[in-house]
Amino acid sequence: MLEHDKMQEECGVFGIFNHPEATHMTYLGLYALQHRGQESAGIAVSDRTRIKNYKKMGLVSDIFKERILNGLTGNIAIGHVRYSTSGSSIERNAQPFSVYYSKGPIAISHNGNIINAFELREQLEEKGAIFQTTLDSEIIIHLLAKNTKKNFIQSIIDSLNLLKGSYALLIMSRDNLIAARDPWGFRPLVLGKVGGKYVVSSETCAFDLINAEYIREIEPGELIMIDDNGVTSYYFNKNEAHRCCIFEYVYFARPDSIVFGKSVQSVRKELGIQLAKEAPVDADIVIPVPDSGIYAGFGYSDESKIPLEMGFVRNHYVGRTFIKPTQDDRSFGVRVKLNPVKEIIKNKRIILIDDSIVRATTTKMRIEALKNCGAKKIHLRIVSPPITDSCFFGIDTPDKEKLIASSHSVKEIEKILGVDSLAYISTEGLLNSVNNKHKYCLSCFDGKYPFEVNPEKARFRLENSTQIDFKF
Amino acid sequence: MLEHDKMQEECGVFGIFNHPEATHMTYLGLYALQHRGQESAGIAVSDRTRIKNYKKMGLVSDIFKERILNGLTGNIAIGHVRYSTSGSSIERNAQPFSVYYSKGPIAISHNGNIINAFELREQLEEKGAIFQTTLDSEIIIHLLAKNTKKNFIQSIIDSLNLLKGSYALLIMSRDNLIAARDPWGFRPLVLGKVGGKYVVSSETCAFDLINAEYIREIEPGELIMIDDNGVTSYYFNKNEAHRCCIFEYVYFARPDSIVFGKSVQSVRKELGIQLAKEAPVDADIVIPVPDSGIYAGFGYSDESKIPLEMGFVRNHYVGRTFIKPTQDDRSFGVRVKLNPVKEIIKNKRIILIDDSIVRATTTKMRIEALKNCGAKKIHLRIVSPPITDSCFFGIDTPDKEKLIASSHSVKEIEKILGVDSLAYISTEGLLNSVNNKHKYCLSCFDGKYPFEVNPEKARFRLENSTQIDFKF
Amino acid sequence: MLEHDKMQEECGVFGIFNHPEATHMTYLGLYALQHRGQESAGIAVSDRTRIKNYKKMGLVSDIFKERILNGLTGNIAIGHVRYSTSGSSIERNAQPFSVYYSKGPIAISHNGNIINAFELREQLEEKGAIFQTTLDSEIIIHLLAKNTKKNFIQSIIDSLNLLKGSYALLIMSRDNLIAARDPWGFRPLVLGKVGGKYVVSSETCAFDLINAEYIREIEPGELIMIDDNGVTSYYFNKNEAHRCCIFEYVYFARPDSIVFGKSVQSVRKELGIQLAKEAPVDADIVIPVPDSGIYAGFGYSDESKIPLEMGFVRNHYVGRTFIKPTQDDRSFGVRVKLNPVKEIIKNKRIILIDDSIVRATTTKMRIEALKNCGAKKIHLRIVSPPITDSCFFGIDTPDKEKLIASSHSVKEIEKILGVDSLAYISTEGLLNSVNNKHKYCLSCFDGKYPFEVNPEKARFRLENSTQIDFKF
Amino acid sequence: MLEHDKMQEECGVFGIFNHPEATHMTYLGLYALQHRGQESAGIAVSDRTRIKNYKKMGLVSDIFKERILNGLTGNIAIGHVRYSTSGSSIERNAQPFSVYYSKGPIAISHNGNIINAFELREQLEEKGAIFQTTLDSEIIIHLLAKNTKKNFIQSIIDSLNLLKGSYALLIMSRDNLIAARDPWGFRPLVLGKVGGKYVVSSETCAFDLINAEYIREIEPGELIMIDDNGVTSYYFNKNEAHRCCIFEYVYFARPDSIVFGKSVQSVRKELGIQLAKEAPVDADIVIPVPDSGIYAGFGYSDESKIPLEMGFVRNHYVGRTFIKPTQDDRSFGVRVKLNPVKEIIKNKRIILIDDSIVRATTTKMRIEALKNCGAKKIHLRIVSPPITDSCFFGIDTPDKEKLIASSHSVKEIEKILGVDSLAYISTEGLLNSVNNKHKYCLSCFDGKYPFEVNPEKARFRLENSTQIDFKF
Repeated sequence: MLEHDKMQEECGVFGIFNHPEATHMTYLGLYALQHRGQESAGIAVSDRTRIKNYKKMGLVSDIFKERILNGLTGNIAIGHVRYSTSGSSIERNAQPFSVYYSKGPIAISHNGNIINAFELREQLEEKGAIFQTTLDSEIIIHLLAKNTKKNFIQSIIDSLNLLKGSYALLIMSRDNLIAARDPWGFRPLVLGKVGGKYVVSSETCAFDLINAEYIREIEPGELIMIDDNGVTSYYFNKNEAHRCCIFEYVYFARPDSIVFGKSVQSVRKELGIQLAKEAPVDADIVIPVPDSGIYAGFGYSDESKIPLEMGFVRNHYVGRTFIKPTQDDRSFGVRVKLNPVKEIIKNKRIILIDDSIVRATTTKMRIEALKNCGAKKIHLRIVSPPITDSCFFGIDTPDKEKLIASSHSVKEIEKILGVDSLAYISTEGLLNSVNNKHKYCLSCFDGKYPFEVNPEKARFRLENSTQIDFKF
Repeated sequence: MLEHDKMQEECGVFGIFNHPEATHMTYLGLYALQHRGQESAGIAVSDRTRIKNYKKMGLVSDIFKERILNGLTGNIAIGHVRYSTSGSSIERNAQPFSVYYSKGPIAISHNGNIINAFELREQLEEKGAIFQTTLDSEIIIHLLAKNTKKNFIQSIIDSLNLLKGSYALLIMSRDNLIAARDPWGFRPLVLGKVGGKYVVSSETCAFDLINAEYIREIEPGELIMIDDNGVTSYYFNKNEAHRCCIFEYVYFARPDSIVFGKSVQSVRKELGIQLAKEAPVDADIVIPVPDSGIYAGFGYSDESKIPLEMGFVRNHYVGRTFIKPTQDDRSFGVRVKLNPVKEIIKNKRIILIDDSIVRATTTKMRIEALKNCGAKKIHLRIVSPPITDSCFFGIDTPDKEKLIASSHSVKEIEKILGVDSLAYISTEGLLNSVNNKHKYCLSCFDGKYPFEVNPEKARFRLENSTQIDFKF
Repeated sequence: MLEHDKMQEECGVFGIFNHPEATHMTYLGLYALQHRGQESAGIAVSDRTRIKNYKKMGLVSDIFKERILNGLTGNIAIGHVRYSTSGSSIERNAQPFSVYYSKGPIAISHNGNIINAFELREQLEEKGAIFQTTLDSEIIIHLLAKNTKKNFIQSIIDSLNLLKGSYALLIMSRDNLIAARDPWGFRPLVLGKVGGKYVVSSETCAFDLINAEYIREIEPGELIMIDDNGVTSYYFNKNEAHRCCIFEYVYFARPDSIVFGKSVQSVRKELGIQLAKEAPVDADIVIPVPDSGIYAGFGYSDESKIPLEMGFVRNHYVGRTFIKPTQDDRSFGVRVKLNPVKEIIKNKRIILIDDSIVRATTTKMRIEALKNCGAKKIHLRIVSPPITDSCFFGIDTPDKEKLIASSHSVKEIEKILGVDSLAYISTEGLLNSVNNKHKYCLSCFDGKYPFEVNPEKARFRLENSTQIDFKF
Repeated sequence: MLEHDKMQEECGVFGIFNHPEATHMTYLGLYALQHRGQESAGIAVSDRTRIKNYKKMGLVSDIFKERILNGLTGNIAIGHVRYSTSGSSIERNAQPFSVYYSKGPIAISHNGNIINAFELREQLEEKGAIFQTTLDSEIIIHLLAKNTKKNFIQSIIDSLNLLKGSYALLIMSRDNLIAARDPWGFRPLVLGKVGGKYVVSSETCAFDLINAEYIREIEPGELIMIDDNGVTSYYFNKNEAHRCCIFEYVYFARPDSIVFGKSVQSVRKELGIQLAKEAPVDADIVIPVPDSGIYAGFGYSDESKIPLEMGFVRNHYVGRTFIKPTQDDRSFGVRVKLNPVKEIIKNKRIILIDDSIVRATTTKMRIEALKNCGAKKIHLRIVSPPITDSCFFGIDTPDKEKLIASSHSVKEIEKILGVDSLAYISTEGLLNSVNNKHKYCLSCFDGKYPFEVNPEKARFRLENSTQIDFKF
């Protein structure tokens, strides 16, 4: 496996109400959201009496075959693709998570991370709760099941108000579909319509695939209830300052999506333009790191008038695993995914555009690959500020001490990487490029979390102490 | 598939404490107990810190491969093979069932059927419990988790005392293994020792395979706690009259096992002798229906001095499924498993020995097969009394109305089957042949249940109303 | 795996002509013949234009699923189950073997062993032939393809006359089905009819399953051509003395089959009677080794008036592989398949009936198992003469030096096994029990082969020197 | 499935001699060549005594696992990825193809199409050859096996000289590796060196991945023999005019490869520049069709000074299959792979750059997708001339009548597609952009084949008349 040196999105969610092809539509929605999680996928569907749930480790296209989709009869469905932030990467932890409780069957899909999960779980266990997974979703359903209020919406809102952290949440009962977004609005969640039926999704690219029309974002702190009476909106918490995850623009979201109200692709191009203004340098060519760096590369090239060349070519058939040669030079793991093109690189002064630097191990190998191909100069330009702190809101980041910018200045990183110059975009530059309708979470750049975070507990993996399941 | 026309055992359990090869031993124990359930199998193992659990649909030898066993490290283990009485036949319902609760991880293997499961579940749900399976085991663990007593054994005993029904139960925590048998003693459970370490099993045939020594039965209403201090026995309920399942002798248990203190094979031979005394008839040969009828056949032949012949030969390679020809004569499904041997049958007066008649559909096809081979006379002898009532204590029986003897006299059945004579063993004859140290449950012959049973709720399948899971 | 200590049948063949359910019937025929080979299975079918062929490693019921059978459209079919004598156990060597040659597509199923295969192959290679498998079948088709005669039957007969060794052979072209048996008649091959359509099979048990009527044996040296004109018989070689394989009666064939014109089960019982006459001994019980020893056990018990008991109980769920415990006592591998029943064995003087002794390793472990259960005396009775020589005609036997009787007297074997007495049936006794219409091959008892055999070349495995394929 | 509307490369080959990690290197080589064939893959390896061969349907990364690579011991290896031009897409037809013949084991990997295969096969069958596949490779080995010359190289050259058509061929015996390229040089084949050991490959991108150094092309009509004495070159036919496949530059080869002596990426950019000169048009943006059109898009944008935008975003997780919704609008199949980005497209005058038009069905759907997103004008620019004729030299093209340009003028196609203007690059423009060291095959643009081609026989699929194998 490639050493993991990326901030990693952990989940995508999709839901649809009262559609004759609910399961197929959800399958396609997940297909489009596959980049948000490639470890497991699942679909739960209600035929108004029973909820069926099918989930497995693997890619959407490998898991769901015609006969499986056909067996998942019903007209309300929610789906989930998962990477794995909280909860270990085992089949038991795949979502949607479904149970039977006093009000009947219920299923839930969650993108995000509940940072007070550990405390909530301890409290629930003391009251006799048993846990089968290490998912936040199981905690949320326990809270809901414990709530004795007759009013379903109110009992959900009560439960949500106990949660601290990030969530784009879909809850399906026999007859309705609920979508809720945490009061800070960390993770994206959008509402759309196809053939007169409502759909919800993490990103609009899922709407495009099924020809659905994009209506609007679900607002931070908003819960919408979709049932046979239509859509009803509830604002359960409007007090929190917005903290939309700016990294959705930088790296996670698909370039063809609209996220937090603005086209991702256009933001990325803006970032390149901005960076070209902030950190210009004389060079022969601009080389973007595919795929996320490409749009920023266009922007930088446009602004600087320095031609862009595809100096790295991506191998489109890289599987989830590959087997390294024994006598491996260190750069092999990088080369298998991106092949540097000697003809383009040789004797050139290069501006290399990448989205971010995490540990810097991968970046270093790419720099070396460029040098091996005869690059004359390498100027590295990064379209995000230095990442100095871990994320606790749904993104898989290494511990703080492994983030190179947490303990090194830009000059030091420049030296470590062996580049002729290194520049990051400024926080202001970043904020100028994104949709200014929202406020953003910058905590991975400045360590300022919206509430107190105990790193030990916030990212506590229950399975670290007492694993209760085992899958091969 | 062969039409299901047999009483069907639903589960087998096996456990071992503090053995360096705990997982391998459990694998072998389940291997030997495979006849008690072929639908799914699982092993949970404790390494004193964590509990790992691996379970799947399929046969023991297909599920557990070397690398899987090697991954299941630990020295306490429990295992389970399952047919499926309560809970639908889906992977989610495979056992052992393991969760994490306030006292840590816990795993459970259950053979039996809790007839007040529906009520208990409703009560638990009202208090906010959520359910992920339709297993009795999940209810038992909920009861345990809700119990606030500090004393672990006492909280288990409290929980067991809420249960009505049958259970041979294994519970494993990080550091101990508990085995309990319901106060009526419906299902068998035995204690043994191998290499100085304790083992528990549904039948002794599992002990034979691992060269363990048989010590004794776990008594009805007894719970034993095995930990590093040795074995401690608790009698949590000695008030109930014993009701050991007599069908274990007739059909379910392996002939080489000791069950309820007596060799199964020797009981079966006794049954044949007894039946020859009760219902003699002049004939040329005795033909047993393999395999369960063979020992009774020996007994009948010995007593009657009429020679035994293997008029039906079993195909040892019958898979779980086979594909019928389109132009199928009705008897094909019977013939694929047991081939009647024309040379033996032709022109003979035959005494056919079988263990029981359930719906009579299979029996009828076998009679026809004998006639097609030219049998001159057929006298059918059954080594159990007429089955008139459903079992609710861990055996899969058809509904009462589908049991031919519930609505037909012996003479009528004789006519329906088209045999020259039909005789069942008497209840007294049956009781004379088994271990008289115990009392037995005869409710499938007389409908006298040890406590009130509401058929609707006792065999209520939760998934019938609201299925919450889906597996292909 | 159990150490291999049995003579092993290597193949079964089945064919059917012009039947609307040709593929399904062949599937069922192979199902019934599964005991003749469990390593791979295949079906080739002609729709009068094309021949389709599907074959895989595994059991018939695992390989062939509904959609596969439905895809194999056509009304002429041949099938094959294979153990693996000649040719290594790899998928490439599965049968039927099909190719395209000058006269169109052709498929072949072969049970037997061509002892001059090595020479024939060398000659063919010198003329430019290329080989993809190490199957005798590929050689036979090469001979056929090289033959320039216009007459199809004559070119087959020419090819067969070049072969030395054993073959029960089915050849299918677009429009016809040919069945041939070698001039010595080593391997069985029978003709039957179902719904007016002709079928051929290694054993009649396949006819029973599909309700086909048994017509007659294909004679040694006979070839029958089945086409739309009916059946035509050709005797291509009537000069050789018959050498039917007597071990088909002793061990290989299914007890419910008719082989070489006589019921296998009745022969086996005869063998037990004969042996009781030849080698009587005073004892308490007769214990047969299941399954092949059971019928001989009946015979011995009937003749001696000593009661038969099932002292070994077979585990019906033994998979193709199982994983041994690390701290294995030597007898484990035996016990997993046959569990000795202590209650029956203890303090008894036992006559143990088995079909044969090959290496004696398994026999020795079973004797020890009986002793461990407290047997007082053990008298071993074997219903075949001492096996002193290897078979080269389609049976997998160890090399001569590994056959215990090749270098030890009966007294010595008795001592090695540690039994109180050992007796084998006499050759005369054996011959008296089988169908006296035929002559039999006794070469494994007397080393007298019907023609000169060079052990090196006759059992030469081409893959030993130059493996050309590789499958996991 | 997406309707097939592309010229399709059919195979890639890779070989390595005397390398300690021969199998792993070949695996990686195939990994890099995966774009040349995704249907099956295989590796044959020689340990100097035996040749092992492993091949399956599927992708390289799915087929080859660590334990499989480790089992393929040896230091000479050849590999193959296959799409499927000649020979049906069944496992039997996967390559390498290996057999045993008079000189020992031999394996072969072939990229190309032998147009006189049908005649050669008929001649071979007449002489008694049997065929198990429909591969050209089997014919080549037959020719070789029939050749009685003692000299191995000469017998290969004799065989090659009988072939008409395209081949980049690797042949491996126990001790040597031969690489040959047809006299016309249709398909690419290059020589390299890694760690002092020779490697051969269809493209240089495979060299990059294993850090091998590119030495030179194997010349048209050249055969090189690599053995322990080094490399020996033979020119078996220098008479034919070169006909390198120009489509390797346009579409097939990976952009980071050097093919026919020139960087593919640089050729593609040249094509865009050239086309901008030949067919300029006023517009707001240039949109390339990913991925092949991107480099041409850069060129066109650079030359025209019209900015390039990624108006189509590729979904990187498109599996080999996906399931369409029932109520499918026609454009779904296009959208699943490439999502048009409304924000970029809306109200724009667009120059759309694509590599070629085959049937035009996919092109038409993309044009419609652009219109649905609100494109104001669409000018389609194609960097290859109109495709009017089928390829018979290793490329999968539809029949001539299905090629839209075979029966329609540019103006007509423009109208059918509904674009505001359509322009193809000129043949001269195309030739000016590629490596002028070679001559090129332009027969798909002008129908002028280098020798007479009988379409019926040249693309005759043997399985069409008489399929001899069947795989699911």
